[in-house]
Amino acid sequence: MKSLDSITQSKVGSRSLVLFYLGIILVVLAMAAAFSLPEDGSTPAHGASAVIFLWIAILLLVAKFSSLVERFGQPAVLGELLAGVVLGNLGMLGLHMFEPIMHDPIIAFLAELGVVILLFQIGLESNIKKLGAVGVRAFLVACVGVVVPFVLGTYVVGPWLMPGLSSSAYLFLGAALTATSVGITARVFQDLKKLDLPEAQIVLGAAVIDDVLGLIILAVVSAIVTVGAISVGAISIITGKAVLFLVGSIVLGQIIAPRLGQLFSRIHSGSGMKFTLAISFGLILAWIASLIGLAPIVGAFAAGLVLDPVHFRFFKGERNIESLIEPLGYFLVPIFFIVTGMGVKLETLMNGPVLLVALGITVVAFAGKIVAGAVAGDVRKWLVGWGMVPRGEVGLIFATIGRSLGVVTDDLFSVIVIMIIVSTVVPPIILAWLLKRDVIPQVIA
Amino acid sequence: MKSLDSITQSKVGSRSLVLFYLGIILVVLAMAAAFSLPEDGSTPAHGASAVIFLWIAILLLVAKFSSLVERFGQPAVLGELLAGVVLGNLGMLGLHMFEPIMHDPIIAFLAELGVVILLFQIGLESNIKKLGAVGVRAFLVACVGVVVPFVLGTYVVGPWLMPGLSSSAYLFLGAALTATSVGITARVFQDLKKLDLPEAQIVLGAAVIDDVLGLIILAVVSAIVTVGAISVGAISIITGKAVLFLVGSIVLGQIIAPRLGQLFSRIHSGSGMKFTLAISFGLILAWIASLIGLAPIVGAFAAGLVLDPVHFRFFKGERNIESLIEPLGYFLVPIFFIVTGMGVKLETLMNGPVLLVALGITVVAFAGKIVAGAVAGDVRKWLVGWGMVPRGEVGLIFATIGRSLGVVTDDLFSVIVIMIIVSTVVPPIILAWLLKRDVIPQVIA
Repeated sequence: MKSLDSITQSKVGSRSLVLFYLGIILVVLAMAAAFSLPEDGSTPAHGASAVIFLWIAILLLVAKFSSLVERFGQPAVLGELLAGVVLGNLGMLGLHMFEPIMHDPIIAFLAELGVVILLFQIGLESNIKKLGAVGVRAFLVACVGVVVPFVLGTYVVGPWLMPGLSSSAYLFLGAALTATSVGITARVFQDLKKLDLPEAQIVLGAAVIDDVLGLIILAVVSAIVTVGAISVGAISIITGKAVLFLVGSIVLGQIIAPRLGQLFSRIHSGSGMKFTLAISFGLILAWIASLIGLAPIVGAFAAGLVLDPVHFRFFKGERNIESLIEPLGYFLVPIFFIVTGMGVKLETLMNGPVLLVALGITVVAFAGKIVAGAVAGDVRKWLVGWGMVPRGEVGLIFATIGRSLGVVTDDLFSVIVIMIIVSTVVPPIILAWLLKRDVIPQVIA
Repeated sequence: MKSLDSITQSKVGSRSLVLFYLGIILVVLAMAAAFSLPEDGSTPAHGASAVIFLWIAILLLVAKFSSLVERFGQPAVLGELLAGVVLGNLGMLGLHMFEPIMHDPIIAFLAELGVVILLFQIGLESNIKKLGAVGVRAFLVACVGVVVPFVLGTYVVGPWLMPGLSSSAYLFLGAALTATSVGITARVFQDLKKLDLPEAQIVLGAAVIDDVLGLIILAVVSAIVTVGAISVGAISIITGKAVLFLVGSIVLGQIIAPRLGQLFSRIHSGSGMKFTLAISFGLILAWIASLIGLAPIVGAFAAGLVLDPVHFRFFKGERNIESLIEPLGYFLVPIFFIVTGMGVKLETLMNGPVLLVALGITVVAFAGKIVAGAVAGDVRKWLVGWGMVPRGEVGLIFATIGRSLGVVTDDLFSVIVIMIIVSTVVPPIILAWLLKRDVIPQVIA
């Protein structure tokens, strides 16, 4: 973790805030000026992509401005999320200039690539042995963290807070409460240089298992709603493929990676080849994961976990893989978190009754995961529990599928969206606080 | 140039070739297997982007395999272009699996971003004083290299080889012969670590001026064809804006960059901020260039030229800008050259009469630029002349506009495309040969 920016914990002053707002104002002014420039027709071939160059620059600069939150002891990712919330909701003030960014497929792709790169980096920084050592506890945490919110959502709080919906609707609500989105937690641990903690390893492991469980739940729930019955065979195949992929990529990967490294180093032994091999391995595993129905980030994490400096001993370049991938992270990761923040529609929070119900559901969503931390064994259980709280886009996938099946109503959809918003923005603050509260002797870097 | 892969000039053996073809076969097999996997509907949210992850991995791995051309003394960029030609023309063998890559807007964007990053890197590696020292000669080379092909194409060889077309058609032919595409030449000099040569500086400077001249020619030719007359005022404004941008970005940039560096270093002084500032500066200048009608790469080059290590003296990170940008180059630059190669349609070469005419035009296209090398002063004139030969996508822009105006016929379009193909593939070979023939005492790295 030596390679991350050092957090400047200097005097928190009004100066920082002035700088911050000055920057935002400058960027907004530049945008306004830019879009008011007349199209003179003399730019036939350039310009289509070029405006995206501008957007990327703006997102990256805003992300860096937002890292001023570090002066207030918060992880940089919180700043990026909040900056995204601000940019994404300027429409409420009549400023629609940033809206094209939200709907641009290229920015969306760069954001998704960003979170894949992030989890690949996290995998590289993680230790497969350490992760294996907490395997059983991670499995327990994942199971409890899936079963408790699912049962509470489907059979208790759903029917109680939102009476009169179909049983399928409650099923989808329960399912949407299960899936952990590990990107935010991973970034918090990374920002605060705590990825080495056993708590971080448990959360990472549990998130991977959680994704497999989520896949099974999605298949079961979809089958119940559409066919009316569960095919045990189909579920077994889905589960088998997912487990096979995870075990296979880690076991086979460890056998194949060094051989591939040796083979490719014969073609070329510089940093470029090293970088290409590593990133291609990550991207291909991300793609295979998606073929099976797992999140691409699970594949990228597995790839990072498998790759080890020893696989690159045939290469000459003095720079290690982490430092070669890092600039790609600088470029892409902030795009993911700002775009995630931009997806938070504050308008959703305007509907009073829906908001109240949503907060009730959110409490259950939080409690279900925090309870899971209790089975994490001899570690800081609160940290594990809160680490599992973020739902991010995974819960949204469930809600969207449910809506497309005609099962999830508009109100229920809003409730799920609000739960996701709150579970996106709150955990970074709590995690940072928990990590600082229990100051344990630090490992010397 | 220390940071580039060291070229392994080891024994040229059949082994390399076996490895090369083995790699290509493996990749093709993997693709075939991949696309034959059934879509089981269980991948609702993942998968849309994930297949692009696979494509990127394939392009990067193919690019690295293709760097085996270095064993034959060729620059890596030639391998990437040829690998692209192979991938792009597998359709002739009935293999259409790579065709989606060519038509994907995200890959196209990454390619364009790639050449922007490349010219930004070239700008960073270039020295503004050295470039200024060759300024007059670069200006002469650019002017001769624009006037000679334009006059020959419009008034001599065009009417002679393709009689019976409208005078507007010859105008567009002449215009298409003028524009230098600097990406290929820059990569060759970079690959062979010769960017420091005065010849390289002259070609870079001339290419920038060439882009301004191309803008003026496009405006003039379009005006003649559509309005029938040239508005001196409009041309002056276009020229003025372009010159103002170039002079302004370099002069103002040198004043503003260090101040911005100091300001931003107060927010954060790590490598991430350093990277973000540099890349954002490059992207914003690329965007402004495109607003004016210049190629984004000209803006990126100017940005790289302006940035200097001294602007980052307030930052703590021990890594310099070049080494932070480099991995982004590893990731994006090969995509540009492979996609460029994929654009080469070998079918175009099948039409005998068109091919013959095209080769005649190509000779003129080459000669017009090589002659320009003669005014480069006391340097290796052949090197400068050949460095100006590649036309790349710039000539294609002229041809496309001409066709959309109904002026350029299908045959004339094919002729221009063939000229571009030949001017893309031949110069890297000649440049590598010229650079090796005249072995001059090397600067010790």
